[in-house]
Amino acid sequence: MYKATIEVRLKPSVLDPQGNAVKGSLHTLGFEEVDSVRIGKTLEVWLKAADEQSAEEQVEAMCKKLLANPVIEQYSFRLEEGA
Amino acid sequence: MYKATIEVRLKPSVLDPQGNAVKGSLHTLGFEEVDSVRIGKTLEVWLKAADEQSAEEQVEAMCKKLLANPVIEQYSFRLEEGA
Repeated sequence: MYKATIEVRLKPSVLDPQGNAVKGSLHTLGFEEVDSVRIGKTLEVWLKAADEQSAEEQVEAMCKKLLANPVIEQYSFRLEEGA
Repeated sequence: MYKATIEVRLKPSVLDPQGNAVKGSLHTLGFEEVDSVRIGKTLEVWLKAADEQSAEEQVEAMCKKLLANPVIEQYSFRLEEGA
């Protein structure tokens, strides 16, 4: 069993309205020192694979097909065995 | 300027319907080897602070007051200076 930890973030050039909303709320709560906020998602995927290379290929394919939108998002992941 | 990278995840005991939905979609796409999926969020917060300790206290307070729901979520963060 492998565990993939996948980080999906908006590309730096893409506006992040959710992050801006959180920044506004933080300012309202008194955290005036906050300059900017960006929000992404973290997916933890446990999967069976014969070896690390096969796990890597599967996770890469999942990211491309479903988990990330390549037009506006970028992704990176790391794999751990037996987690 | 400090950059805090904050990971907010559901506690392990809390059901993750969004993760289960993604797992279902991955199975439908042919990724039958996926055993489970859990989804969290990553916040990148840039803030001004006099020193690292003050930045840490501020981020801790933000997490408690707004960014994480302590009933169902857990959080962790790391700080980088000048990022």
